[in-house]
Amino acid sequence: MAKRLVPLLNRVLVEKIVPPSKTNAGILLPEKSTKLNSGKVVAVGPGVHDREGKLIPVSLKQGDTVLIPDYGGTEVKLGDKEYHLYRDEDILGTLHD
Amino acid sequence: MAKRLVPLLNRVLVEKIVPPSKTNAGILLPEKSTKLNSGKVVAVGPGVHDREGKLIPVSLKQGDTVLIPDYGGTEVKLGDKEYHLYRDEDILGTLHD
Amino acid sequence: MAKRLVPLLNRVLVEKIVPPSKTNAGILLPEKSTKLNSGKVVAVGPGVHDREGKLIPVSLKQGDTVLIPDYGGTEVKLGDKEYHLYRDEDILGTLHD
Amino acid sequence: MAKRLVPLLNRVLVEKIVPPSKTNAGILLPEKSTKLNSGKVVAVGPGVHDREGKLIPVSLKQGDTVLIPDYGGTEVKLGDKEYHLYRDEDILGTLHD
Amino acid sequence: MAKRLVPLLNRVLVEKIVPPSKTNAGILLPEKSTKLNSGKVVAVGPGVHDREGKLIPVSLKQGDTVLIPDYGGTEVKLGDKEYHLYRDEDILGTLHD
Amino acid sequence: MAKRLVPLLNRVLVEKIVPPSKTNAGILLPEKSTKLNSGKVVAVGPGVHDREGKLIPVSLKQGDTVLIPDYGGTEVKLGDKEYHLYRDEDILGTLHD
Amino acid sequence: MAKRLVPLLNRVLVEKIVPPSKTNAGILLPEKSTKLNSGKVVAVGPGVHDREGKLIPVSLKQGDTVLIPDYGGTEVKLGDKEYHLYRDEDILGTLHD
Repeated sequence: MAKRLVPLLNRVLVEKIVPPSKTNAGILLPEKSTKLNSGKVVAVGPGVHDREGKLIPVSLKQGDTVLIPDYGGTEVKLGDKEYHLYRDEDILGTLHD
Repeated sequence: MAKRLVPLLNRVLVEKIVPPSKTNAGILLPEKSTKLNSGKVVAVGPGVHDREGKLIPVSLKQGDTVLIPDYGGTEVKLGDKEYHLYRDEDILGTLHD
Repeated sequence: MAKRLVPLLNRVLVEKIVPPSKTNAGILLPEKSTKLNSGKVVAVGPGVHDREGKLIPVSLKQGDTVLIPDYGGTEVKLGDKEYHLYRDEDILGTLHD
Repeated sequence: MAKRLVPLLNRVLVEKIVPPSKTNAGILLPEKSTKLNSGKVVAVGPGVHDREGKLIPVSLKQGDTVLIPDYGGTEVKLGDKEYHLYRDEDILGTLHD
Repeated sequence: MAKRLVPLLNRVLVEKIVPPSKTNAGILLPEKSTKLNSGKVVAVGPGVHDREGKLIPVSLKQGDTVLIPDYGGTEVKLGDKEYHLYRDEDILGTLHD
Repeated sequence: MAKRLVPLLNRVLVEKIVPPSKTNAGILLPEKSTKLNSGKVVAVGPGVHDREGKLIPVSLKQGDTVLIPDYGGTEVKLGDKEYHLYRDEDILGTLHD
Repeated sequence: MAKRLVPLLNRVLVEKIVPPSKTNAGILLPEKSTKLNSGKVVAVGPGVHDREGKLIPVSLKQGDTVLIPDYGGTEVKLGDKEYHLYRDEDILGTLHD
């Protein structure tokens, strides 16, 4: 069975969203619509302490859809699935419908 | 439908203004008048916390016309449109008529 | 007899977990299932002091199963065994069943 | 019509002074007398906040004649005119008759 | 006569332990058992002051057996003997039987 | 007429002292006696503010003879004369008879 | 006459000790005994201010025999003599008989 990862500090575990390369109806999508690097937040760390010792919690929560940077992040394999770990300050934003 | 991006921290989402290469009357404009890198602010993050834990809001607001640097920024595609994300301290200034 | 190492500051001594390359029944496992860099925490340092002089203890404890980065860490040999030393902020997360 | 630029943070918009290459009487000046990099301050930002949250205003004001560094600064074109943006700490000094 | 060195700040003077290449009984030891970089602390500095002006004493004391990094440190010769100077934060840990 | 430069922040305007290559009596001096990089302080800035907002004045004053580093500094021409600008922390010391 | 140098900030003026290459009795010394980089402190600066504005005096005094690093320092010639300037934190330790 796959192990569960609890990130340390302000790390965020993200599962990348692989955009469908064809529509449900089977029509091939042009390449540019697959360009957005988005992912689903799977787990977040407890945050980091600032200079005064106060805990700064991670500004994201499990289930958030996020825009991730093109580079960076650490690839992690848990069971069959591939994830990426980011520091929360490297996540660019949240995506909403 | 295109997703809506809410930037994190002090990030600013900017839509670049593509200057017209001819006037309304159809006269071609010389290249130098197209040199200014300007954009429209589409969304701003909540800001960052300083060392004392106080939130420093972003110094720009949605709708501002801004002067952006020649380099840097992260290209983002939302739907058909292309945007750029900057840290607010990298925006050079605001433009006014 | 092997010496015992007490790490200084926020260092963490980790013994890497070498994944079995075949199952108990002797079936060879495909390479990807051996990809996870995990280890067992063997010893932790006392932590570091922040700017106010307060001790920040290490966020891990002996016995934790941890996800370690692909690069970095200092190889240490104690007796016959090989360990790695990391700063606790370089440990990516803890692993749980 | 040219747009007006309001610099952000501690940026200073400078119009370089192009020294005359001949005197009013038409005598060509030797090259060395044109060496001084000076400019006129056209606009200044509001300043930056220090760690305590106090605003540190820009130490220059519109109309100041300044000595600018040989390198650095960001070229900006507003209408037909070319300007340069500097952080105020990069301006070397003020020039007085 | 050899001079005595009193380290400044948080420096630690270490005499490397050269592991015996044969046992007392004259049996040659295999190379891997000589791999551990350990040393004996010979002298320590008074420590450094933190931002509040409080002295942070060195976390090691004369006589400690320490694990030293593979690289770094400053070679010092006092009389016939060779020592190495390290900042105390570069010492990896203490070794105990 | 040459302009007068008022340095900003903790900058110091220095006029280098060119050592005589012969004595008053006309005897050529060997090269090594011309090695000292010294200068006269012509103008100083107001200083910089520390983190608490307190002004730290420049530790040099007009008229001081100073030892300047071999490299660094910004060359400035005012009228016919050549000067150099340094941050006061880059000036090595003051010279006295 | 040679000028006297008063170092600025936490700089320390050191006159290197050139070890005798033969004993008083004229016996040539082997090279390794000349390896120690030591010097005599000739002058010290007033120290630097910490973030709270408190002066941190230089931890060395005129007359101290010091161990200096192999690299770094600024060569200074005063009259016929050659000295080296170091920041006091770069001095490795003091030497005592």
